[in-house]
Amino acid sequence: MIVDAAELQAFAMQLFTARGLPQDDAELIAEVLVWANLRGVDSHGVLRIPGYLARVGNGQNNPRPDIRVVTDAPAAAVLHADRAFGQVALGRATAIAIAKASNAGIGACFIRETTHMGAIGFFALQAAAAGMAGIVIGASRPNMIYPGARRPGLATSPIAVAVPGAVHAPLMLDMASATASVGKIALARDAGLPLGEGWAVDADGQPTTDASRAAIPTPLGGHKGGGLALMFECLASLVVGNPLIAPFIEGAPDGTRHMQNGLAIAVDIARFGDVEVYAGEVDRLAETLKTLPRAEGVDEILVPGERGDRILEARTESGIPLASGTWKRLREVAEPLGIAMPQLRQA
Amino acid sequence: MIVDAAELQAFAMQLFTARGLPQDDAELIAEVLVWANLRGVDSHGVLRIPGYLARVGNGQNNPRPDIRVVTDAPAAAVLHADRAFGQVALGRATAIAIAKASNAGIGACFIRETTHMGAIGFFALQAAAAGMAGIVIGASRPNMIYPGARRPGLATSPIAVAVPGAVHAPLMLDMASATASVGKIALARDAGLPLGEGWAVDADGQPTTDASRAAIPTPLGGHKGGGLALMFECLASLVVGNPLIAPFIEGAPDGTRHMQNGLAIAVDIARFGDVEVYAGEVDRLAETLKTLPRAEGVDEILVPGERGDRILEARTESGIPLASGTWKRLREVAEPLGIAMPQLRQA
Repeated sequence: MIVDAAELQAFAMQLFTARGLPQDDAELIAEVLVWANLRGVDSHGVLRIPGYLARVGNGQNNPRPDIRVVTDAPAAAVLHADRAFGQVALGRATAIAIAKASNAGIGACFIRETTHMGAIGFFALQAAAAGMAGIVIGASRPNMIYPGARRPGLATSPIAVAVPGAVHAPLMLDMASATASVGKIALARDAGLPLGEGWAVDADGQPTTDASRAAIPTPLGGHKGGGLALMFECLASLVVGNPLIAPFIEGAPDGTRHMQNGLAIAVDIARFGDVEVYAGEVDRLAETLKTLPRAEGVDEILVPGERGDRILEARTESGIPLASGTWKRLREVAEPLGIAMPQLRQA
Repeated sequence: MIVDAAELQAFAMQLFTARGLPQDDAELIAEVLVWANLRGVDSHGVLRIPGYLARVGNGQNNPRPDIRVVTDAPAAAVLHADRAFGQVALGRATAIAIAKASNAGIGACFIRETTHMGAIGFFALQAAAAGMAGIVIGASRPNMIYPGARRPGLATSPIAVAVPGAVHAPLMLDMASATASVGKIALARDAGLPLGEGWAVDADGQPTTDASRAAIPTPLGGHKGGGLALMFECLASLVVGNPLIAPFIEGAPDGTRHMQNGLAIAVDIARFGDVEVYAGEVDRLAETLKTLPRAEGVDEILVPGERGDRILEARTESGIPLASGTWKRLREVAEPLGIAMPQLRQA
């Protein structure tokens, strides 16, 4: 199934408005999801929609949240998200961080009680588009092994960093703190391929490369990726008084309820120098790296964000391929709402 | 050779004052180096002294720098370090970040043109001691493989994050963006042990586990650790207009000159809630993680900083063991300066 981005986005938006979301919010969520599909990050694309809508149904996602700033310092704020869709909360938080950075040099906005934020690189890029460096981190319920443990004690919490380029696209890193993402493991399972060594453990906490037995991903490099994920909890969750890891491990009644916290930081490059010069240096860095002698079997040196940018260009042209399982599950949520499936692209 | 920390620190301080450093600066550098030894991070301890002093000799380290704030925004500053010792520059920057955070909620201080900063966790902990979350990153000349390349294109740039605990010690992560640090590789070489798979490549850029052939470390998890190191260059070096990677790869005349840039960030936890409550949540998190069922062969679940804290406790009691090579090289710099070697501990 191949669908044009605009078709898919309009379809996604209809689903969200049908479930009670305001038009603007539905538009943003649909845009961020389809953007992930465009960039080839299908694990964060429209396949998430059925889960999102289910959480609207059970009250974990609030379609009409009362999002408000509950703490406001000159360079930092806390946004109480009232279980808003993560994209909606993070969009507001990024705008606040950018505004504060433009006053104070750096700006931060913490997000309390939001839900899945999707492809957070989208928001780091908004800072880059404003001539700033953007940093976004997320914290969620544990789904990743704690180093040395047999059970989850950490989330595959992501970090995204983006900086503006001049001729080049922005450099944009968007990575989970896991060795391999949950999506990548699911992909291997679907494709019947073995996992990389050390990517995951089975339900008993034993290392496995058998994708069908893999149950829990491992942190990148053990204590390093695990340490990052833990410090993201300390920065994003504990600062706003909304711990996610401890209640989960302790088996608290609401300890497994879906919830995320987040943090958006912007650095106003113009405060420290000329943004044009900065962007030129980003270009120079990217170009210089590409001149490095390549390892065997490597066709080209890539910089962060470049692979996704290329897929985006290709998929904007040729459409977004959707797996049949994704299509089927989307139809299951669209039909009861009386929403037509997106038009398939002519072959 | 086993030496008491106080002896070793006094010795180190004398070496630095003898080479023209002000008393306060010499004291701080000696303290940070010996702190690393106390914590078992010997690669960042006093073995660095001969290199530091050689760079004073060749003008790369400035013993009497004119450190000054060249940009001052409400929540962010740039400190021009004038090739100061990294510990001296980072000490000042951390104090500035803390002061700004206490006014603005978050505070950042960029450091332009400093030198090796040592164990940067020391400074993240200063923020924690002030009831704040501390984040420090560093950028240096390339010494690590760029993903897909056969030559260095990135530095093993570190990040440290620390947050205060209540009864527990602060949680403190201090990690390089490499799979295994240069120090760990050197240790395997000295011990005649093989390296871990994927830790390093040889001088031709071919992967090797032979420590004697290992020449260049690899980034943690390839594109992830590599991406972090690259974004640290964009954040710490390009924001202050002092690129380190591009001139190195381009072969610029001063492109291999030792130099670092840095960034210290503090978040004033008190601005967002009660610090005591926060510290209590850090304790709860650490304690809860320790209750997780352990993987085979694991005696105890550890939290970031804990291993180093224990070694510190033991070495404070029983002294710091120094390798004979380190001792010899320290004597080579101490003798010409007429400085007596530290007293050895009685066996």
